Amino acid sequence: MTETTANLLKRRTGLLGPNVSTFYDDPVHLVRGEGVWVWDAQGKKYLDCYNNVPHVGHCHPRVVDAICRQASILNTHTRYLHEGILNYVERLTATFSDPLNTAIMTCTGSEANDIALRMGEAVTGKRGVIATDHTYHGNTTVVAQLSQTNSPATGDNNHVRYVPAPDSYRPLGGEAGEAHGRAFAAKVAEAIDDLERTGFGFSAIILCPAFLNEGFPDLEPGWLDPTMDVVRKAGGLFIADEVQPGFGRNGYRFWGHQRIGVQPDIVTMGKPMGNGHPVAGVVTSAEIMAEFRHSFRYFNTFGGNPVSCAAALAVLDVLEDENLQENARLVGAHAKAGLRELAKKHHSIGDVRGCGLFFGAEMVTDRATKAPASEYVVRVVNEMRARGVLMNKLGIHYNTLKLRPPMPFSIDNSEQMLETLDHVLSDLGPADE
Amino acid sequence: MTETTANLLKRRTGLLGPNVSTFYDDPVHLVRGEGVWVWDAQGKKYLDCYNNVPHVGHCHPRVVDAICRQASILNTHTRYLHEGILNYVERLTATFSDPLNTAIMTCTGSEANDIALRMGEAVTGKRGVIATDHTYHGNTTVVAQLSQTNSPATGDNNHVRYVPAPDSYRPLGGEAGEAHGRAFAAKVAEAIDDLERTGFGFSAIILCPAFLNEGFPDLEPGWLDPTMDVVRKAGGLFIADEVQPGFGRNGYRFWGHQRIGVQPDIVTMGKPMGNGHPVAGVVTSAEIMAEFRHSFRYFNTFGGNPVSCAAALAVLDVLEDENLQENARLVGAHAKAGLRELAKKHHSIGDVRGCGLFFGAEMVTDRATKAPASEYVVRVVNEMRARGVLMNKLGIHYNTLKLRPPMPFSIDNSEQMLETLDHVLSDLGPADE
Repeated sequence: MTETTANLLKRRTGLLGPNVSTFYDDPVHLVRGEGVWVWDAQGKKYLDCYNNVPHVGHCHPRVVDAICRQASILNTHTRYLHEGILNYVERLTATFSDPLNTAIMTCTGSEANDIALRMGEAVTGKRGVIATDHTYHGNTTVVAQLSQTNSPATGDNNHVRYVPAPDSYRPLGGEAGEAHGRAFAAKVAEAIDDLERTGFGFSAIILCPAFLNEGFPDLEPGWLDPTMDVVRKAGGLFIADEVQPGFGRNGYRFWGHQRIGVQPDIVTMGKPMGNGHPVAGVVTSAEIMAEFRHSFRYFNTFGGNPVSCAAALAVLDVLEDENLQENARLVGAHAKAGLRELAKKHHSIGDVRGCGLFFGAEMVTDRATKAPASEYVVRVVNEMRARGVLMNKLGIHYNTLKLRPPMPFSIDNSEQMLETLDHVLSDLGPADE
Repeated sequence: MTETTANLLKRRTGLLGPNVSTFYDDPVHLVRGEGVWVWDAQGKKYLDCYNNVPHVGHCHPRVVDAICRQASILNTHTRYLHEGILNYVERLTATFSDPLNTAIMTCTGSEANDIALRMGEAVTGKRGVIATDHTYHGNTTVVAQLSQTNSPATGDNNHVRYVPAPDSYRPLGGEAGEAHGRAFAAKVAEAIDDLERTGFGFSAIILCPAFLNEGFPDLEPGWLDPTMDVVRKAGGLFIADEVQPGFGRNGYRFWGHQRIGVQPDIVTMGKPMGNGHPVAGVVTSAEIMAEFRHSFRYFNTFGGNPVSCAAALAVLDVLEDENLQENARLVGAHAKAGLRELAKKHHSIGDVRGCGLFFGAEMVTDRATKAPASEYVVRVVNEMRARGVLMNKLGIHYNTLKLRPPMPFSIDNSEQMLETLDHVLSDLGPADE
């Protein structure tokens, strides 16, 4: 750790308070970004295999230009008329199937999920919500209550039921595939019954359709069908939190729910939407939107302002013009194949999973017992950082390497990552903790 | 209404749903802004007497430059180290008295208030909150519960008590000044007792220190002292919502609470902070911050990113370099004097109030009875818009002209507004509804 780093950490604690998290034992002091690359204050260059917010690449010139152009012309709220929000919402909703054709624009995914929960209340008149026991949907008071992992520690989360996060490596009941999907649906059905019994009633289930925070299990299209049946039968809504899997990242379809083959009632989105500019949103049907708009008055000062819409529109343009969804599919497949190659040599790699440019490897101390190598993975991540490759960990046991690079991540980039990982795993030796 | 306006409204309803509010009977379709001016699609120029978000003026070149420069260098989250947030928080907290010297940066004022309420919970272990019966603090589920006027219509707001909004024109108990302040404090004391009795306990009172949504009553420094005594005695926190009165707008002091002479425990801010860029924040003491950070894990992806910090820092620079707080004091006083002149001629003006560049006139049908001219004020506002001056209405009876222009608003601008208003009031005639 340099003197500057130590000094910045000291200033942070003074100005921002304790427990403000940073990545890595030796936090990175970034000063510049371009495409899939970032540079620290010492001029060291890192391959960014982690950041999904700069979706089309750090500081993409077309997004920067769109922001600069609109910021110098007009930036105001939506109580005046402006084409920006209309043109964007038209483009955005065109990526969904009917009847998902209306939107509210917000500034953060947390705000979007906060609205989605109220949409559920408006439609069903009930409050009970179901989420997985290893998810994260955001930071407002009511949205934080959806996380067990994030210890919201706030008043009343009695109306939330947590179902076991799907784990394709250690499936519920021991059997993967369809049986696993039915077992998950049975847990959802139990939670619904419990919510109805305790008087909250069942309003909605909120899921990341790719279960990314849960460790991105391998789930085939159709896996969620039994769950959807249970939810529909109970008259509840399905909220797809696409804050992470959306905007082409999965490589196959533009949205995560399309990939797994379900039709949500409400879709929320955020992080990659403006390539770092604070913009997010909720998409739903005209019917649900009308229910919400009649039950709740809602106005968001910055939401849908012309600059945010210009940034978001530029992201859609670049995704299309640079064919980034296809790139995610091809490079993701290449990288996963590379990780599988490494697994032949490094027995600490227990499982390789992912879809498009969200992929990784679950690390174990023993392949037979699948015992999580949670401490080992921390060493791997820190050593990768030392060698100029940024990635991180996640999953139910926090033992899964998480790779989620900007979308222009190339075959060459993935080769560099794989080669570095190969050396790191060799140097660290086996994961016997 | 032009064909384009009608068409935009139709597209809005289709894409954004019903009940998405616009201003004016004939909504304005804005295409450009500069300083205190905005232009519509027909090239018509308007004097903006309303918008506080473009605080240092629409599209201020220094703010635009700061955004463009940083957006093209690096935009990432705070889990990496970056000087931007530290330099900004240092500058920001220097505008407060000790011990208010730590901050959390968010994207919206709603997010800031959502955190402030949790800080109250973390410190007191209690949930009961007090707000006025005519306020608005934002749009997240728990923050919307603080508004009676905004019909949150959501589940559980049993832990909120609403006290009568102060009204210097029709003071509680009939007497203005200190007696009015004591009467308000007595209502707060009653609400605290009730919260303690019903088991929620008293956590915090949240007030805009200038009561701007309530109609910006004339309250002398010291007016809130009896309330502060009551709050302190009960062990509760005082949250100052500075989303509107802050950043020099009141002309006398940088913050609204400094003007009325109270020391809050927590201060929230938003709208003008980035001149339209989505940035907001919470400032508090190191002690309260630590309590919050130990009770709740909180991370905001876009909050405190380098671009938002660059925008916010540029706003502070411009405020200082262009001496805009002093301008607010001088021009606000001039405009208020002008409104008082108009009141001699137009008896519909019942009261003239405000401080700095947040001022206006309460319209009545009869000065003796002070009967609110709520419909008349709508006609005034629409007619002003037709004549190229944008303003709006607010207050307990929605009969108060609300003027809250960008901070570079000049004496000449205020003359144009006054002259136009004079003509409109003459043409509309007396406010006998």
